[in-house]
Amino acid sequence: MSASGINAAVQIVGLAGFPEIAPGASLVELTLAALSGQALWLQPGDVVVYTSKIIAKAEGRIVALADVVPSSLAITWAATHAKDPRQVEVVLREARRIVRMDRGVLIAETQHGFVCANAGVDASNTKQLGEVVLLPEDPDASARRLRQELAAAAGIALEDLAVIVSDTFGRPWRNGQTNVAIGAAGIASVRSYAGERDPTGYELRATEIAAVDELAGAAELVMHKLARVPVALIRGYDFPRLAAGAPDPGAAALVRVAASDFFR
Amino acid sequence: MSASGINAAVQIVGLAGFPEIAPGASLVELTLAALSGQALWLQPGDVVVYTSKIIAKAEGRIVALADVVPSSLAITWAATHAKDPRQVEVVLREARRIVRMDRGVLIAETQHGFVCANAGVDASNTKQLGEVVLLPEDPDASARRLRQELAAAAGIALEDLAVIVSDTFGRPWRNGQTNVAIGAAGIASVRSYAGERDPTGYELRATEIAAVDELAGAAELVMHKLARVPVALIRGYDFPRLAAGAPDPGAAALVRVAASDFFR
Repeated sequence: MSASGINAAVQIVGLAGFPEIAPGASLVELTLAALSGQALWLQPGDVVVYTSKIIAKAEGRIVALADVVPSSLAITWAATHAKDPRQVEVVLREARRIVRMDRGVLIAETQHGFVCANAGVDASNTKQLGEVVLLPEDPDASARRLRQELAAAAGIALEDLAVIVSDTFGRPWRNGQTNVAIGAAGIASVRSYAGERDPTGYELRATEIAAVDELAGAAELVMHKLARVPVALIRGYDFPRLAAGAPDPGAAALVRVAASDFFR
Repeated sequence: MSASGINAAVQIVGLAGFPEIAPGASLVELTLAALSGQALWLQPGDVVVYTSKIIAKAEGRIVALADVVPSSLAITWAATHAKDPRQVEVVLREARRIVRMDRGVLIAETQHGFVCANAGVDASNTKQLGEVVLLPEDPDASARRLRQELAAAAGIALEDLAVIVSDTFGRPWRNGQTNVAIGAAGIASVRSYAGERDPTGYELRATEIAAVDELAGAAELVMHKLARVPVALIRGYDFPRLAAGAPDPGAAALVRVAASDFFR
């Protein structure tokens, strides 16, 4: 943090001009080209936010529905709710636990532990109809790789760059979806105020801000689902650094363990 | 939205220098003074985000615990979990439904329909120890008043200014809290993509982005719980305008109705 503890001004810039991403595409090269196309260059302290979709595509996490043989459960559920049984089958395969399956809505816990609709399987913004895209296999690892390569290419110290992988999740109790972090590298996912005191002397105990989720949501403000703006640059946010030598917890640290989860 | 549908660059500025807010304080005057102190002035298209705490204080939503007589339920629960029974009593009075009451955690539905810890009753950042602050009685009405007065004072058209009231909420399944909108004026809470098609022709059906929550979270990035930065200015976000002549739905539109809520 800055000396004042205040991030006075934060800037968020959407990076446009990305092509359709094919398996094996170098997101680092494409990111640097997009930055350069907007007369930008990475600086120490930057946070780069990627939609999970382009990372998944670059990593080949694409399934052609023509190749999927649906199970009996997938066929029954799909028939009741006017869905494609092959797509439902992919969802079931990506899930490690079904959280709710009711009124046409399938909320699942993914292999990573995230809880979201359809286990993150998505048919929008694919290369062609009849394909679905899965979540990246290990979004924290994807973020770490991108961070390493971006920092090296831009010639900035690794500790001064953070990368976030975002996806669009619904949530209980509130309408609408927001972008949250499903992968992170180089940044403490949660900024804790535990033990700090307010100006009156009251000790904050429960306050832990999920900074990476707020950054992912902020990035969505400059992205657009229909216009290929899959990356955002956030500048001027003095992000919570990892302790020196500490392992990188990533967005996996955001997964609430079953014992403290009241809404399984 | 801009012609391209893309918000290329968004800026978020924290407004500092606010005094302790007393009941009856003019937040409009204080906001204009804070802006001026940072050589800023409101412009068409700005979004101003307030923490609910300063609005509640200005509206006198403060309870001195010395005046509270706890009920038997409050006394029992407080004794079991090392809490102040008078504060628990205030929480129970602010709730219209208890969602979970377990392992020392009290998650309640507020009179507004929001689901959060302790019905939004908070003992941090009060004027003095022994006080708690409630949520504003009608945060959408507070937002509408602030928007009207700010637009008039700054001489900009009402449709070109939005105001959001934010609070810090936890959520199921994910560790940490984020700032969300509990009040809004002049902005569509949800940006719907329903019926629009991606570059491949796939029709987006379920995508509705809760823009006001992402704006509230983005504002938190420049706020700080211990340094009196209770207001943020967001500039360059082409916010989803209300349809001409339509009523202002406010953040109340984010409250999911019971019939579509799987996690009551």
